[in-house]
Amino acid sequence: MSNTHYACDLAAVSEAAARIAGVVHHTPVITSETLDSRAGRHVFLKCENLQKVGAFKYRGATNAVKKLSNAEAARGVVTHSSGNHAQALALAARVRGIPAYIVMPRTAPSVKKAAVAGYGGLITECEPTLAAREEAAAALVARTGATLIPPFDHADVIAGQGTTALELLEDVPTLNAIITPVGGGGLLAGCCIASRGIKPTMRVFGGEPLGADDAARSKAKGEWLPQTAPNTIADGLLTSTGQLTWPIIRDQVERIFTVTDDQIRAAMRFVWERIKLIVEPSGAVGVAVVLSDEFKSLTNIGSVGIVLSGGNVSLDKLYW
Amino acid sequence: MSNTHYACDLAAVSEAAARIAGVVHHTPVITSETLDSRAGRHVFLKCENLQKVGAFKYRGATNAVKKLSNAEAARGVVTHSSGNHAQALALAARVRGIPAYIVMPRTAPSVKKAAVAGYGGLITECEPTLAAREEAAAALVARTGATLIPPFDHADVIAGQGTTALELLEDVPTLNAIITPVGGGGLLAGCCIASRGIKPTMRVFGGEPLGADDAARSKAKGEWLPQTAPNTIADGLLTSTGQLTWPIIRDQVERIFTVTDDQIRAAMRFVWERIKLIVEPSGAVGVAVVLSDEFKSLTNIGSVGIVLSGGNVSLDKLYW
Repeated sequence: MSNTHYACDLAAVSEAAARIAGVVHHTPVITSETLDSRAGRHVFLKCENLQKVGAFKYRGATNAVKKLSNAEAARGVVTHSSGNHAQALALAARVRGIPAYIVMPRTAPSVKKAAVAGYGGLITECEPTLAAREEAAAALVARTGATLIPPFDHADVIAGQGTTALELLEDVPTLNAIITPVGGGGLLAGCCIASRGIKPTMRVFGGEPLGADDAARSKAKGEWLPQTAPNTIADGLLTSTGQLTWPIIRDQVERIFTVTDDQIRAAMRFVWERIKLIVEPSGAVGVAVVLSDEFKSLTNIGSVGIVLSGGNVSLDKLYW
Repeated sequence: MSNTHYACDLAAVSEAAARIAGVVHHTPVITSETLDSRAGRHVFLKCENLQKVGAFKYRGATNAVKKLSNAEAARGVVTHSSGNHAQALALAARVRGIPAYIVMPRTAPSVKKAAVAGYGGLITECEPTLAAREEAAAALVARTGATLIPPFDHADVIAGQGTTALELLEDVPTLNAIITPVGGGGLLAGCCIASRGIKPTMRVFGGEPLGADDAARSKAKGEWLPQTAPNTIADGLLTSTGQLTWPIIRDQVERIFTVTDDQIRAAMRFVWERIKLIVEPSGAVGVAVVLSDEFKSLTNIGSVGIVLSGGNVSLDKLYW
């Protein structure tokens, strides 16, 4: 299947990179001999936990917000999210000087509401169901004329997330594989299009919690399956893949590896303790994958890049 | 006073940089708009917590070990330390394939002994007094012919630590000030020589815990004073400055700022929570200084570099 059928192509990612340059951090790539030794190959950690708002989500949100016409932008943007996308969109909107209407379930942790408010987001609370969230967002769009920017299933968001892989390959051109976590699939799809667009032999893998393994099950069956009743510490990866992300994952991703919460917790502790970086559970999934026996058994992967996708955790508790 | 009277000069730091290149990480420099906003100026964080063994100490240890002749090296190296220098020297010795004899008080935390042993260090336990440590180290030197590499008061160690500032200025040539923590003063003295050697107008500041403020008191009095009965969370900064480091600090450092343990703890949490980096209490001292009212009142410092000196903490407890 040709790339032209997808929501995103290499040109869109390159345009996104030019659009967001100077606003979004070019994050560092970190290496560790201890990690290389444990993984049995060279590992390059792309530190999106060091991105603004603490997550790669700022790339896609910034690309989408900057692409709006002045007339569209003036009416603002809307999303429903209690996670990193909400903060990312709030900041991207503030940078452009436009309102961001963020629908959050009334049960969302107060620290998350405070973070969104801290970036200037205008919060609308709703009941904690997907239907209530969608309804509240639609009502905001109808009332304000603002543009809905969903967290992953949007061409400009996918292109923005793909800039992560562009930078990674710019800094480490010798990579022959990339692992990213997969929730809705925006990061995985974008990185897939970007990295395989530049280097068609690139092997792209997803990492998914066993307790929210819709992408792995979908890949195994060859058709889209939804995530129901997710149960994992990796709270950024609870959602199903989307209509735009799934076809890219279906066709272009080699394999989705699942890891248990214990593996995620161990990887998270390893990154905190040995690499000295704060990653959230979702952000540690790629490290859990590269340390798994299943991944270690793969051959012909000398150098693998891993996206540490985010670092937003509460520091009021221990995770182990 | 001319630089030629000091234990270290810019040429020695430049030679150290060439000597340790490729072995020691060129660590990233991180910025944060939130930090800039709170500090009231541009702040550049030099991430020595991401250095091998989790601290800048690996620079000085590597420089000293690599400078040994083959005959000297074959007999090994010795130090007495329970901190980051012990791990750094153990790894530097292992990289050269020589023994590292590390004298540690028998009361040192088992996690620190395990870390040293993990890098191949040969541990000799002793009573927890300075006299016992020095005696045990001297006995090892006498028995093995190994070379004593002290943690800071050694020309090659100071030159190695100075490479931190060389890299920082290479990456951020516009800096007009640098803040480093000060314990024994190896990092501060080395960074002072390096940065003022390159840019004579550079303003260099030390950050010190109020509970171990010998350098600040020494500067105030204009003569060397020892640290007695230190009491601070910043366990890497307990020692007095040394015979080689003190003259550089006396003449070339503009001022030593003291910060309380509460300020250190708040800075540490800020770096974990907002910058997403694990720093140890000693490593957060520079951030505590830049956020202090005293430092904020300084004028004509548009861009300041801060060395996050290390990230070795226990993750089994909360610090707040």
